[in-house]
Amino acid sequence: MEEKIIDLITKTVMKELSSKESGGIPIGVSARHIHISRKDLDTLFGEDYQLKKKKELMGGQFASAEMVTIVGTKLKAIENVRILGPIRSKTQVEVARTDAIKLGINPPVRESGDLKASAPIAIVGPKGVVYLEEGCIIANRHIHMSPKDAFRFGVRDQEIVTVEIVGKRGGTFDDVQVRVDESFTLEMHLDTDEANGMGIISGDHVVLKKKMKA
Amino acid sequence: MEEKIIDLITKTVMKELSSKESGGIPIGVSARHIHISRKDLDTLFGEDYQLKKKKELMGGQFASAEMVTIVGTKLKAIENVRILGPIRSKTQVEVARTDAIKLGINPPVRESGDLKASAPIAIVGPKGVVYLEEGCIIANRHIHMSPKDAFRFGVRDQEIVTVEIVGKRGGTFDDVQVRVDESFTLEMHLDTDEANGMGIISGDHVVLKKKMKA
Repeated sequence: MEEKIIDLITKTVMKELSSKESGGIPIGVSARHIHISRKDLDTLFGEDYQLKKKKELMGGQFASAEMVTIVGTKLKAIENVRILGPIRSKTQVEVARTDAIKLGINPPVRESGDLKASAPIAIVGPKGVVYLEEGCIIANRHIHMSPKDAFRFGVRDQEIVTVEIVGKRGGTFDDVQVRVDESFTLEMHLDTDEANGMGIISGDHVVLKKKMKA
Repeated sequence: MEEKIIDLITKTVMKELSSKESGGIPIGVSARHIHISRKDLDTLFGEDYQLKKKKELMGGQFASAEMVTIVGTKLKAIENVRILGPIRSKTQVEVARTDAIKLGINPPVRESGDLKASAPIAIVGPKGVVYLEEGCIIANRHIHMSPKDAFRFGVRDQEIVTVEIVGKRGGTFDDVQVRVDESFTLEMHLDTDEANGMGIISGDHVVLKKKMKA
């Protein structure tokens, strides 16, 4: 019993220490979503279609009002997958592993934009369909931050770090990529599997740990 | 680049060290499933219905051939949820957080059998339906082991430990409950969110770490 109390106190203190005020990093959980090219948006929603902004996101991105259905190579579908704006040079579908299993596909864990030999996927919109030979990935764990934040944490762009998650179902995530850019607001992006498996939600905080050298 | 090579070597060695031969603990990933009472099996499949054994599991349990549909309080459904045998004194539905979000319910993270004030759920079978006022949980992370294994690892029943996951998407899980019984085969049980978020599958191995005292 005493051990349980010590454990509870430790966790309460750790939770406080991991808050934003104490230098913690806020979590943004990314549900499955799509980034779309001008050409593919034309195909799916009609020529010169403009995405409707539903919610502002970090770094000038936004959740649009538009949703599509994605279909894997075994013809399994997931409906209501949201498009994020603004449009990009290439269309990219980001799913969690749980989604991939449902779709019957095997996408690699990748940094956004690294689509070479990624999984094939079909996208169905109200005005047409797009088949991507490659374009579906599981996003890698990453933290967006400004150069000022990078200096504060003592990390650099592309560095791989570990973060600690405090909670009733806590632990650590290794293999977390740091991305530094003037336009970035401090935020760690996890997919739904990662967040749900660790019992955390958007707005919770994690603590950055420098990677131990071997 | 040199850092990447060191990292790769470290992980390869760690992966080897975490194998069964080196004292690693095999993972069993639990997809959403149901344990069923005699009374509820009668309702869902007909009086005196006998579950058909499809696959043997640890400790005398088995995956049955029978599946049901579960429906949450917002009337969202998940189909093809497998029943595990043999029958138990109480019906219990175990889902991952991702499933719970889909179902629109909020089950607590609990040890199997601890159903007090857990989430309500409806179960639909070919011959009838069952509505549980409480009975749906998210299973806590746990490791089954024999007293001999417990001695070897230096842990006791109900102890909370940490495990390390080595991989491209690795990390650690805290808050892992140890369960010791003569009938248990050494196996760590994770749900699909936890396994998918850490990039591991059934048959992979993890390394047990004694919990650090505060």
